[in-house]
Amino acid sequence: MSYAAAFVDLDGTVWRGRSAVPGASAGLRTLRDAAVPIVFLTNNTGVRRDAVTSRLDAIGVAYEDEPVVTAAWATAAYLAEHRPDASVHVMGRDTVEAEIEDAGLDVSAEGPADVVVVGYDDRVSFARLTAALRAFGPGTVFVATNRDRTTPSEDGPIPGANAFVSAVSGMVEQDPVVLGKPETRMAELAAARHDVPVHDCLMIGDNLETDILMGERAGMDTALVCSGVSTRDDVAASDVEPTYVIDDLGEIASLL
Amino acid sequence: MSYAAAFVDLDGTVWRGRSAVPGASAGLRTLRDAAVPIVFLTNNTGVRRDAVTSRLDAIGVAYEDEPVVTAAWATAAYLAEHRPDASVHVMGRDTVEAEIEDAGLDVSAEGPADVVVVGYDDRVSFARLTAALRAFGPGTVFVATNRDRTTPSEDGPIPGANAFVSAVSGMVEQDPVVLGKPETRMAELAAARHDVPVHDCLMIGDNLETDILMGERAGMDTALVCSGVSTRDDVAASDVEPTYVIDDLGEIASLL
Repeated sequence: MSYAAAFVDLDGTVWRGRSAVPGASAGLRTLRDAAVPIVFLTNNTGVRRDAVTSRLDAIGVAYEDEPVVTAAWATAAYLAEHRPDASVHVMGRDTVEAEIEDAGLDVSAEGPADVVVVGYDDRVSFARLTAALRAFGPGTVFVATNRDRTTPSEDGPIPGANAFVSAVSGMVEQDPVVLGKPETRMAELAAARHDVPVHDCLMIGDNLETDILMGERAGMDTALVCSGVSTRDDVAASDVEPTYVIDDLGEIASLL
Repeated sequence: MSYAAAFVDLDGTVWRGRSAVPGASAGLRTLRDAAVPIVFLTNNTGVRRDAVTSRLDAIGVAYEDEPVVTAAWATAAYLAEHRPDASVHVMGRDTVEAEIEDAGLDVSAEGPADVVVVGYDDRVSFARLTAALRAFGPGTVFVATNRDRTTPSEDGPIPGANAFVSAVSGMVEQDPVVLGKPETRMAELAAARHDVPVHDCLMIGDNLETDILMGERAGMDTALVCSGVSTRDDVAASDVEPTYVIDDLGEIASLL
C-alpha cells in the first residue's frame, strides 16, 4: 500500500533517551527509498528542528531535512490561524514562547491575556502558577500543547504536560483546547502544511493512547512499533486498534 | 432554635486578611452567651490552634480556647482512623506533615508510600511534583486536604489546593479522597471528636460552594454570611440553599 506521507513519532520510535531505537535508521531509509515523504510528529515541546537534527546526528540516524512538527509548533500554528491578534500568556518551555513569537503573536508575561497556553513546564513554581491564574479574564481561551500524563526519563517517570495543564484547569474550572496527540489538530495542521490529505497518511508511533489513538481519530492507517511505551499485550487489552503492529521501525518495509 | 454546636468558618467569616470581619466579635459573643459551643472549621491547612489564637488576638477578636478544626487536622485524623500504619508522602505545607506526625503516622519523603497527601503547596516545584509522582505504587491511596480552586490574597487570587491536587491527579489518573469542605468528612470528624450529632449543629460560613454545600450534604442547618465570597445574588443563582442568609456574624442572634 502506498501513503501520501508517513507521520513518524520520535520518542520511543526513533530514539529512546540518548540512543537510537534499533531499526530506526533502516526504517527511515526504507520510507525514503519508497518515496514516502516523512514528517516527524512529536508531543515534545522542548525540541526545535535544529535540535532534532543534532540529536539524530549524535545517535547516528541520518536526517534528511524532513519537517518536524512538534506540539509547540502546532500550538503556534493553531493560534496564528484562529487568534492572530491575541496576546498570549505561556506557562511552558521557552521553545513554546519562541514558536508563538515566530508565528507573529504577542507573548505577554503579566496580567490578563487573550489566550493562556500551558504545556510541560520544568520551571513550575507558585509564582508561575499565580501568573497563569491571573492571566485569565472573561473570554480568555485556554490552550494546552498536549496532555501526556508522565514522561519517561533515565531514572524513572517525571511529570508530563498534563500535570501543569490540570493544575491550571483545576484553578479556573475550564477545559483546554488540546493541540497534541491524541487530539487530531496537530495531524490536521501537519497535513495541511505539507499539502497532503490526512487520511492518506500513515501514523507510526510507539504509544497506543497518543500516536495510534490520534491516527485512528483522524481516519489514518496506523502502525504501532513495540519499541517504546506500548506492547502487544497492551494492544490485546485496549479498545484502540492499530492497523499494523510491528517490532520496530526497521520492519516498516512489510507495510509498504 | 438551639444547636448542639456552631461550626464557624474563619476566612471571610471571622477575619479577612489581617482584619476582623465587622460583627465577628459580637457574633461569637452571642453564641457563647446562648451557650452554643463554637468549633472553628477551616479548609486552611497552614494554620494551627496557636496561630489562630494569636491571629484573633492581633485583630481584637476574643478567642476563648474553642477547638479549631482544619483540613490538615482532619486529614491526619482520617489517616489515623483508616490507615494507622501507613507511610505517608506529603506534598503540602509543613503544618500538614506536623499534624500527620502528631497523629502517629510515618511521613516519608522519598520513594513509594502507602498514602500520598496533597494540599496547598506554596513550595511547589518540578522536583516536588516528581517526588509525589514516584510516591505512587500499586495500591497507593491518594488523599487531598481540600480542593479550593483559588485563595484570595491582598493583591489578587492565588492558587488554591486544587491546583496541586489536580496536577497530581493529572499524572496518576486517580481521584483523591477529599477531606475538606464541601466534602462532609471534616464535619463528621469534628462532630465525632466533640461528641455532638452533626445534624444538630449549625454551619456558618461565607462560601456557598464549600461551607454551605458541606452543611447541606451533612444534613445541617446552614447560615451564609455575606461578608466574604458569596453574595445574595449568588444564592439566587445557585442550587445550594442556605437555611439562613445574614449580612455578617453579628446578626447571628436572630437565628438562635
